[in-house]
Amino acid sequence: MGRRLRFALLAFAAVLAAASLRPSAVGGQPPETTSVDEAARRMLAQGLREERAHDLLRGLLEAAPTRLTGSEGAEAAVEHMGKLMVDLGFTNVHREAVLVERWERGVETAVVEASGQRPVIELAVCALGGSVGTPEAGVAAGVVEVRSFKELEALGPAARGKVVFFNQPMDRAILEPFRAYGANAEQRVRGAVEAARSGAAAVLVRSLTFRRDRHPHTGLMRYEDGVPRIPAAAIATRDADGLSALLRASPDLVVRLTLGCRDRGPVSSANLVGDLRGAERPEEIVLIGGHLDAWDLGTGAHDDGAGCVHALEALRLIKAAGLVPKRTIRAVLFMDEEFGGTGGRFYAGAPERRGERHLAAFESDRGGFLPLAVGLGGGPGVPERFKAAGGLLRSLGIVQGLVPGGGGVDIAPLAERGVLLGGLIPDAARYFDAHHSALDVLDAVHPRELELGAVALAVMAYLIAQDGI
Amino acid sequence: MGRRLRFALLAFAAVLAAASLRPSAVGGQPPETTSVDEAARRMLAQGLREERAHDLLRGLLEAAPTRLTGSEGAEAAVEHMGKLMVDLGFTNVHREAVLVERWERGVETAVVEASGQRPVIELAVCALGGSVGTPEAGVAAGVVEVRSFKELEALGPAARGKVVFFNQPMDRAILEPFRAYGANAEQRVRGAVEAARSGAAAVLVRSLTFRRDRHPHTGLMRYEDGVPRIPAAAIATRDADGLSALLRASPDLVVRLTLGCRDRGPVSSANLVGDLRGAERPEEIVLIGGHLDAWDLGTGAHDDGAGCVHALEALRLIKAAGLVPKRTIRAVLFMDEEFGGTGGRFYAGAPERRGERHLAAFESDRGGFLPLAVGLGGGPGVPERFKAAGGLLRSLGIVQGLVPGGGGVDIAPLAERGVLLGGLIPDAARYFDAHHSALDVLDAVHPRELELGAVALAVMAYLIAQDGI
Repeated sequence: MGRRLRFALLAFAAVLAAASLRPSAVGGQPPETTSVDEAARRMLAQGLREERAHDLLRGLLEAAPTRLTGSEGAEAAVEHMGKLMVDLGFTNVHREAVLVERWERGVETAVVEASGQRPVIELAVCALGGSVGTPEAGVAAGVVEVRSFKELEALGPAARGKVVFFNQPMDRAILEPFRAYGANAEQRVRGAVEAARSGAAAVLVRSLTFRRDRHPHTGLMRYEDGVPRIPAAAIATRDADGLSALLRASPDLVVRLTLGCRDRGPVSSANLVGDLRGAERPEEIVLIGGHLDAWDLGTGAHDDGAGCVHALEALRLIKAAGLVPKRTIRAVLFMDEEFGGTGGRFYAGAPERRGERHLAAFESDRGGFLPLAVGLGGGPGVPERFKAAGGLLRSLGIVQGLVPGGGGVDIAPLAERGVLLGGLIPDAARYFDAHHSALDVLDAVHPRELELGAVALAVMAYLIAQDGI
Repeated sequence: MGRRLRFALLAFAAVLAAASLRPSAVGGQPPETTSVDEAARRMLAQGLREERAHDLLRGLLEAAPTRLTGSEGAEAAVEHMGKLMVDLGFTNVHREAVLVERWERGVETAVVEASGQRPVIELAVCALGGSVGTPEAGVAAGVVEVRSFKELEALGPAARGKVVFFNQPMDRAILEPFRAYGANAEQRVRGAVEAARSGAAAVLVRSLTFRRDRHPHTGLMRYEDGVPRIPAAAIATRDADGLSALLRASPDLVVRLTLGCRDRGPVSSANLVGDLRGAERPEEIVLIGGHLDAWDLGTGAHDDGAGCVHALEALRLIKAAGLVPKRTIRAVLFMDEEFGGTGGRFYAGAPERRGERHLAAFESDRGGFLPLAVGLGGGPGVPERFKAAGGLLRSLGIVQGLVPGGGGVDIAPLAERGVLLGGLIPDAARYFDAHHSALDVLDAVHPRELELGAVALAVMAYLIAQDGI
């Protein structure tokens, strides 16, 4: 509670400090003489020169290297970013309560047990998010390998009591990595349910990545009421290939899977909000958001540390350029995207929304890679009114400008309220290399690429804050 | 000579092998039913699935990890890639002689000498390409720091006998990294001449990179007749900042620069050529090229191993897709781009050009990063006739499609013969991080990004081979 009190006091101090500043006293240039184009060029130059987004990201990852929903790390992240928002001069800095389920990782091992001359072989695995644990001695069973739910069904009773091994690789021939991921994600999300229906004892799921290495990639899995809850783990792609080869030679081999993960029940957590208050219509809001929680194998640098610092750096750039938006520009760091978007739902339904009107919301949750476009509107085409903004983005190095698309788990609940949704669309060629794995660390994020994303979001938010929708 | 004979025999065998294949026997599909669009989709899928370009690059870097013009490594590279062309089933695989100057790196150190309580401080430096060496004991002198030739001139006699330290950082605020590089490159290229005119003893030039680290970046420098030839070295950016801080505290400090580099005189080297022979107009040629020589601090993975494998993989993809082009598609691996483009000039003027007509030439010498566009024509706009090709490229993930631009040092001499010049334009955000330094290694090249570049070049070359200009 001491931390929270300190945080509240800091936030309060920030509100006072901000209130004492007149708009015309912020920055070096009177806002009325600054066109959006000029503002954009200024923010681009300052952003590229300073590359502060990467510094902000380093700070977050040092203060809270793991940020699993409901964990102490997630709390430390809220604390750190709240202080940072205050330090950056944001107004209305506050937490909003979110009730989340806390899931905890424990020991996780899988071994192919010794048989004849074959020694014990260790496989690189990790529990999938939300999985139940195994008994302490693990689950030891034969393995059946399948590539699809259809193949599993065809096995019939042969899967009973077994470890079902889903080994369908992500299809590299699909140009859009997110589409290749989506095509395979159901093995991870629904694999345990489908396998349990066939009487399986546990599941191993091939990691969702184009790369072949020894890093398992975690991610959400779900159970269904009325279906037995069996342990579920991801296996690294190279280990999956190895296990598959072993199975061809020794179809009767036994794998012992031991998972110490468990549910800790509901805990109180928070979304974090900070504003640049609009000078003319403060109740009208343009939102930029990312999610503060992250999987715990790496440090969540791309997913979604990058999105969080995109939001903060965008507001910082606007402020540093001496701009005072007519409408409020808000950074929201959502909690618990990874377990299903609890924070996004809480934000949309929170009492704090009374009296507020959100015009647009941009989400950054595709990593800190080179931004190729800003997605807008989700519909088939970019609204005519934004054609010029596309050209402006292209002049800033966002080569595709504005494209239809955007949105995301955290801001989706705002769509029902008629809010225009958008989002940053970075290049995804490298995204699933690190995604949800131990490789998602600061070194995988390039300072210049990260910064360009913040510039793009700053420009779009400022444009809408000035001109409306 | 044994190697050359073996090489010639292999090439001869390849010609025989290729001649024994009828066009209709190559690949699985009769060429006349394959539209360029369909061919492009097939090559994209196969390229992404196999990611062979990265394997080819690994092979080159293992066979010839350093490839300084005129060195044994460069010879090993010609040998390796020639065999590879034969293995890949190219025809007309042969060397074309190029006479190059061989320059050799030796010991290279720079130390701030001890003074009072200050111990010896070592600076991370490397000789610039073409620099003369120092006497064995090095050159010891005071240091004058400048940011421009104008500042140097203003120093007047104060530079006499000194080490001139050019410390102008590359301007990160410039959006196009190649433009930022170009704006600073004259410090490296002409710094020694300008400093020698002021009577300086040597030059240290801040490395050309946006990053701040301890890796010096080499690159070409030039002397001028009638101006004394003084030693020239690059200093890593972090060391440059450190030296600058030291100079503020101790303006009289002495740096001792020792360079063992030297000219070894002219040696015989080669460009390497391999074709997919055109079925209808074999004398009409579409060229794809990169340069085989490389700076020697890293392994030249991006610069320009990537360009070399782009060329080979493009031809391989065309062949693997069962396509038989109407005109010849040629891969050329040029020698000695880094010291000024000797190979490119030899290629354009070689006796082998008699009876050949080049329609278009594409150069890949901007690294193996995500390709954003193919540049074409160099003029202000993309020729109207290629508008559809731009859309095709965009559908393959080359998000900007065709843009005005392209060309490069190696193919520039072909422009005088009316050849349409083009080139691959990858994203450059990371390019100068590794450029000409020890960081330019295989791990810095992403298999998927590299492959997309080969696909883009394959599609453009095949399109022109089928339809002409």
